[in-house]
Amino acid sequence: MVTPPRAHESLIDRYTSVRSRTERLAAPLSAEDQMVQSMIDCSPTKWHRAHTTWFFAEFVLGSEQDGGRPWDRPEYRFLYNSYYEAVGARHPRPERGLVTRPSVAEVVEYRTHVDQAMEALLAAGLEDETAEATFMLGTQHEEQHQELLMIDIKNLLSMNPAVGPAYADRVLAPVSDPGPAAWVSFEGGVIETGRNADAPVESFSFDNEGPRHEVRLYDFALADRLVTAGEWLAFIDDGGYQRPELWKSDGWYRAQGEGWDAPLYWRRSPDEPNTWWIHTLTGLRTVDPNEPVVHVSHYEADAFATWAGARLPTEFEWEHAARDRPVAGVFLDEQSDDFRFHPTSAGPPTGDLRQLFGDCWEWTSSAYQPYPGFAIADGAIGEYNGKFMSGQQVLRGGGALTPPGHTRLTYRNFFHPHTRWHLAGVRLATDQPS
Amino acid sequence: MVTPPRAHESLIDRYTSVRSRTERLAAPLSAEDQMVQSMIDCSPTKWHRAHTTWFFAEFVLGSEQDGGRPWDRPEYRFLYNSYYEAVGARHPRPERGLVTRPSVAEVVEYRTHVDQAMEALLAAGLEDETAEATFMLGTQHEEQHQELLMIDIKNLLSMNPAVGPAYADRVLAPVSDPGPAAWVSFEGGVIETGRNADAPVESFSFDNEGPRHEVRLYDFALADRLVTAGEWLAFIDDGGYQRPELWKSDGWYRAQGEGWDAPLYWRRSPDEPNTWWIHTLTGLRTVDPNEPVVHVSHYEADAFATWAGARLPTEFEWEHAARDRPVAGVFLDEQSDDFRFHPTSAGPPTGDLRQLFGDCWEWTSSAYQPYPGFAIADGAIGEYNGKFMSGQQVLRGGGALTPPGHTRLTYRNFFHPHTRWHLAGVRLATDQPS
Amino acid sequence: MVTPPRAHESLIDRYTSVRSRTERLAAPLSAEDQMVQSMIDCSPTKWHRAHTTWFFAEFVLGSEQDGGRPWDRPEYRFLYNSYYEAVGARHPRPERGLVTRPSVAEVVEYRTHVDQAMEALLAAGLEDETAEATFMLGTQHEEQHQELLMIDIKNLLSMNPAVGPAYADRVLAPVSDPGPAAWVSFEGGVIETGRNADAPVESFSFDNEGPRHEVRLYDFALADRLVTAGEWLAFIDDGGYQRPELWKSDGWYRAQGEGWDAPLYWRRSPDEPNTWWIHTLTGLRTVDPNEPVVHVSHYEADAFATWAGARLPTEFEWEHAARDRPVAGVFLDEQSDDFRFHPTSAGPPTGDLRQLFGDCWEWTSSAYQPYPGFAIADGAIGEYNGKFMSGQQVLRGGGALTPPGHTRLTYRNFFHPHTRWHLAGVRLATDQPS
Amino acid sequence: MVTPPRAHESLIDRYTSVRSRTERLAAPLSAEDQMVQSMIDCSPTKWHRAHTTWFFAEFVLGSEQDGGRPWDRPEYRFLYNSYYEAVGARHPRPERGLVTRPSVAEVVEYRTHVDQAMEALLAAGLEDETAEATFMLGTQHEEQHQELLMIDIKNLLSMNPAVGPAYADRVLAPVSDPGPAAWVSFEGGVIETGRNADAPVESFSFDNEGPRHEVRLYDFALADRLVTAGEWLAFIDDGGYQRPELWKSDGWYRAQGEGWDAPLYWRRSPDEPNTWWIHTLTGLRTVDPNEPVVHVSHYEADAFATWAGARLPTEFEWEHAARDRPVAGVFLDEQSDDFRFHPTSAGPPTGDLRQLFGDCWEWTSSAYQPYPGFAIADGAIGEYNGKFMSGQQVLRGGGALTPPGHTRLTYRNFFHPHTRWHLAGVRLATDQPS
Repeated sequence: MVTPPRAHESLIDRYTSVRSRTERLAAPLSAEDQMVQSMIDCSPTKWHRAHTTWFFAEFVLGSEQDGGRPWDRPEYRFLYNSYYEAVGARHPRPERGLVTRPSVAEVVEYRTHVDQAMEALLAAGLEDETAEATFMLGTQHEEQHQELLMIDIKNLLSMNPAVGPAYADRVLAPVSDPGPAAWVSFEGGVIETGRNADAPVESFSFDNEGPRHEVRLYDFALADRLVTAGEWLAFIDDGGYQRPELWKSDGWYRAQGEGWDAPLYWRRSPDEPNTWWIHTLTGLRTVDPNEPVVHVSHYEADAFATWAGARLPTEFEWEHAARDRPVAGVFLDEQSDDFRFHPTSAGPPTGDLRQLFGDCWEWTSSAYQPYPGFAIADGAIGEYNGKFMSGQQVLRGGGALTPPGHTRLTYRNFFHPHTRWHLAGVRLATDQPS
Repeated sequence: MVTPPRAHESLIDRYTSVRSRTERLAAPLSAEDQMVQSMIDCSPTKWHRAHTTWFFAEFVLGSEQDGGRPWDRPEYRFLYNSYYEAVGARHPRPERGLVTRPSVAEVVEYRTHVDQAMEALLAAGLEDETAEATFMLGTQHEEQHQELLMIDIKNLLSMNPAVGPAYADRVLAPVSDPGPAAWVSFEGGVIETGRNADAPVESFSFDNEGPRHEVRLYDFALADRLVTAGEWLAFIDDGGYQRPELWKSDGWYRAQGEGWDAPLYWRRSPDEPNTWWIHTLTGLRTVDPNEPVVHVSHYEADAFATWAGARLPTEFEWEHAARDRPVAGVFLDEQSDDFRFHPTSAGPPTGDLRQLFGDCWEWTSSAYQPYPGFAIADGAIGEYNGKFMSGQQVLRGGGALTPPGHTRLTYRNFFHPHTRWHLAGVRLATDQPS
Repeated sequence: MVTPPRAHESLIDRYTSVRSRTERLAAPLSAEDQMVQSMIDCSPTKWHRAHTTWFFAEFVLGSEQDGGRPWDRPEYRFLYNSYYEAVGARHPRPERGLVTRPSVAEVVEYRTHVDQAMEALLAAGLEDETAEATFMLGTQHEEQHQELLMIDIKNLLSMNPAVGPAYADRVLAPVSDPGPAAWVSFEGGVIETGRNADAPVESFSFDNEGPRHEVRLYDFALADRLVTAGEWLAFIDDGGYQRPELWKSDGWYRAQGEGWDAPLYWRRSPDEPNTWWIHTLTGLRTVDPNEPVVHVSHYEADAFATWAGARLPTEFEWEHAARDRPVAGVFLDEQSDDFRFHPTSAGPPTGDLRQLFGDCWEWTSSAYQPYPGFAIADGAIGEYNGKFMSGQQVLRGGGALTPPGHTRLTYRNFFHPHTRWHLAGVRLATDQPS
Repeated sequence: MVTPPRAHESLIDRYTSVRSRTERLAAPLSAEDQMVQSMIDCSPTKWHRAHTTWFFAEFVLGSEQDGGRPWDRPEYRFLYNSYYEAVGARHPRPERGLVTRPSVAEVVEYRTHVDQAMEALLAAGLEDETAEATFMLGTQHEEQHQELLMIDIKNLLSMNPAVGPAYADRVLAPVSDPGPAAWVSFEGGVIETGRNADAPVESFSFDNEGPRHEVRLYDFALADRLVTAGEWLAFIDDGGYQRPELWKSDGWYRAQGEGWDAPLYWRRSPDEPNTWWIHTLTGLRTVDPNEPVVHVSHYEADAFATWAGARLPTEFEWEHAARDRPVAGVFLDEQSDDFRFHPTSAGPPTGDLRQLFGDCWEWTSSAYQPYPGFAIADGAIGEYNGKFMSGQQVLRGGGALTPPGHTRLTYRNFFHPHTRWHLAGVRLATDQPS
């Protein structure tokens, strides 16, 4: 939250752009689709649309206005607060799918009222840098929920036992062979990492990306592309899910307890056991061996790396390797008719790292913890990131369901190590390339 | 299923009448309301609408036609089969709320297609008595689901933490004082009970209502009205939920484990602890001491009876007492603007039994078991009742959410003893009136 | 509790006889064996030994003496009360296996102290009939716990993954072929059932066996022997555990949820899948097709009966059929070196009912409910039977782990329908013999 | 495992010394005490005694001998393997408390047989450095289980609802006031951490303590003593368990879900709510405000640090601060009659760090992860530490239940962040002393 909005985008444009993408993403979904919470980690689309709106109402409008606001129904403060304990009582997360009223139509009305008020406020000008930072946080927050909306609806549609329901109907051609992976080496040393608070003001960042600090790295190498589905099939065929020596203890118990034998959303064809099908946002189709594997937990990523004689990168290795490389790749592109809503091939080898940004988030071996000197901000906003710094793993990069412009070199995404419903894949690392 | 449809109602009229009531009951509900399954015992409104339609498609149309039927999508056979194992694989009950597609609109289309086919079939005439019996079973089945639809939606709306959402908005006046209960005595002996298969053809009955047989009753008395909410308040105030000696062992563990301290849907006013609120289909309001208590489990009913120095009636005592009395009372009346969707006062004493039919179902002390000589019908229809004859208790009478004309003297409703979301109340019995 | 102790047995003899059998049954068990609770339905042997002692201390000595009693440690009242809520707070049943102190040795000391006091009291004479009835109840109670002790220790030993641990080591010869079952017919009518309170004083009975009353029976027939393990193998081979149409709904869900594919304690030989092994108190051995099947739930018994084209008897049919037949059969005989601790063959056909008493308890189709006019006794003793009259099924007869003399024509044993760890088997019934 | 046994201790002395301490620790416990597993994290004393023996049989004797070994019963390999998946099938951990046979006496016999064989082997001389390293690992492993035995039996005894049962009976005097805590500052920089593989051979270390490597630290300060129970009482009184802003998200949900309101083993006096009792190995007594708080989870430690305006140290800060300080403090001293089996006061301020080693383990903020360049050893021994490097937190130091000589500067203990049954306490850290 340290820097103001980018100079080349007016606040109103920024607001309109973000808000309208949410509406586009929800457009293909019926009221029924938007109502249901398929598991405790997920939220209904309706809730995402309301909660992102509540954020502006609570933290931006709330501090600017008072009285007679058409959007200001007390139950919204209760229902659409996600986890800000400081703001007051809130509705239990597992019960979000039980609240059928307000309806989707009422949520649309809520969004419209808040949009009108926000646009008026922005036209009048925010009062200071703090207000601008909070506003920008609200737009970044909505972008985060755009990605959650997409992975949550993907999970919900996967629950439908009838073959077919897709978010977007399209027939996809196979993707190209990315060739064998190669190691790209990096020298160690004491290097700087994280967001520099004094850097030229050019973009937003979250509090958890700083303070900038030094870490000691040793020589390492990264694979020049993501692990493919084809490589994962070899792991499966080699008994990867049945060999405890490849797994961390926590992972092994989880995998055994839940009967994992493949990534989430993979299932064997009932007729041809050697053919794997995959549920995607464009429907059920065969697994393409040339596309990156996704929807694997940190446990599976780690076991795969052990099987491959490698390891996962630390988040500092990843950031060091990605420094000075463009933040470019396959990001969310819902307006393109041939967008896959899924990672694609790394394309032909380039002699350098491919797929660093985009395609899918990359699990790192780093536990999500505060950087040295990190301090939680005062007030409810302080709950934004810090409270999750226990039990989760850092992911880096960004993926095919991440809004373009939302990620950056120092961005720290995080999930619990057993989770699989988000778009996470694997890049291998090693101390010494073999 | 032993008797043909009543003579005074043509089959088409019967069909149209039943089907249109389902649509009227669903009319106040949004797509969101119709989508959600609030707990495992309940089903979404959308599912009730589709499942009752599937019954006609599977069991009536299925045997009459073949090929090119517009309603005949294979996933419907899978999704909308409730528990007929013989008919094929079916979707797990706890996951009914996860299937967002087909949408409510598609279900309406499904209903329309099946209605057209059914009306054509009925106009052409059913081929034999068996077909007529199955048709009639389908309409009775849909009436059962009308009551389930109402209790299920009541449960769903109760999950909404915001005060207010009601199925029907109306302000209700207090009901009249029914006066103290009095005993009505009956002589014992060897009496006949159950449906007489050879009786004059005048109405439908389920297989579980027969065979007619003799039972030995001892002298008994029944209370002349249902237990009131006011009497239940006295039970609460006397520590009824904290005194193990009043409870059966299974009931005590359930009540303690789930923290019961009042009927389902009752909650203490946060401001006035001595005031109880009740969630109803017409919204949240104060408990009226003169209305019957409902939404109590069999365990609670039994504990109350023990506390009152009485017991619950057997189903045979109930039927013996109700014989030769009119099947009249407060039944579902969704077209009346002042209908309460809830039981009401017994009214002033009459010197005879009041509220035998209507208002609410009455728990009996009888385990739901086959009558002597009962045999399960062949085929899927045979699963209709017999498979539930373990672990459940019989309820008699009918209630304010039962479609009028759906109940009768010998009707055996049944639920597990811990269940509370259906409209069940209590009538006391005793060996010797005190 | 209606009748005084039998005239032919002095109270001291009765006491000594019962108490010493408990000690004999525990003798083969180590302190470790006596400490563990293998599942929530079971109790440690140590607890059974202490709890039966507590019953005399609480209900017999407690009302006779006061002060300075060496056995009277307050924690015993808390730890060894089973379910008598009226007597005071008690230790939660699932945690009985966590209390390692008092040790087995201290429990022996407790037993000794109470025995001394009891013998002194009995020598001095009990003060009235009520005291005698309570004393007799205490001895009957201990006999019930002797059977529980045996089925609980059997369950515990079954948890040991190493083949071998047995309660009693012995090699058993195969049992004889009982021949095919035959029907024995009985005429219906209004018959009397239950314990006659005014009958000549000749034996003890529990309160739940009366009042004597009339029931209306229809003509029926009973199989002349118990269902054998060989017949159960045919049920398994015919898909009995995979065919939902044979099962009641509750039973089907339980069987599927717990993966039942055979009676409890049966397991397929790892090397020969068609060979079934059975865990018994004399160790692991092959199933003998001529012995009765035991350790089946009521659900399985009912499904088997449906498969066999028959049904289970009601408890009234069973009692009517057993009337005027001797209470003789295979009962607990721990002092005999060739006792099997398991039911045995019915032996050759006799033209009459075999195995009515002994061998194993027989599931009936009757829910465990009070007889007409049943009233719960005042005080803690009143909790003895009445509170369990919900959710359980009646079993009749007695079995190979029942102390001899403990059962009788009107004895009503009861367990929840899903339970399998007790010694229950199946006798078929039918309306009309085929 | 990098270094051979210390020169000043012969292998036989080392073996005898370790093995005899296990026996001394078990001596006060009855067979019943040694049988029970109080929760899934714990194991029975009997199992600890057998499992540590199995380690020598499997990994030391197993590679030296074959045939005719009296201790070599196949079920022991199955029952007493803890988690070495590579060695073969093993008994499920949660069921360790169900295996009553072998008895404690048989386990003693097992220990004796293995001891005799081990002593003969050691007298003959181990064949190479690898064998010596495995032997030494076996003794270190048994020392780890000595601490587990003590915390597990403490947990078991806490389950006894009767006040009193203690591991050791003694009356303890209050401990002295350690005075207010003070900060001790350390300069940052790039420092070396972990075990140096090339260091002079002077002691054993585990594989997870290396490789030695550089880390970048920033200036920090550590509290000069552990947090006291008195300080924890202030945290409780200030609403520490009710204020979500102090907690990490995972911790808050755990604490709320399990109803934590104090450290494990603390309970309010039923008569005086402001008096706290604590269950210890010497019985139930009042909390002493001057003793260190123990039996807190990582979540609680972290919340306390936040409340105190501080944080937990990283494991690298802790090791840097402890370097060059003597490994001295309160360790397990079961042969001393006045040993408390509990941490004690830090004693008067010294101007330097107190209680670094001994008293209790100290939670660090470091997730338990491999050091750069760490490689898992081949074979079953490789499962020793590496497989747990996910989801756990590092603790440093050692405690009052740690065998003396078992810990060292680089020792990395680890537990899941929610666990509380082990002897963990809190030392605060800060970036800048206030």
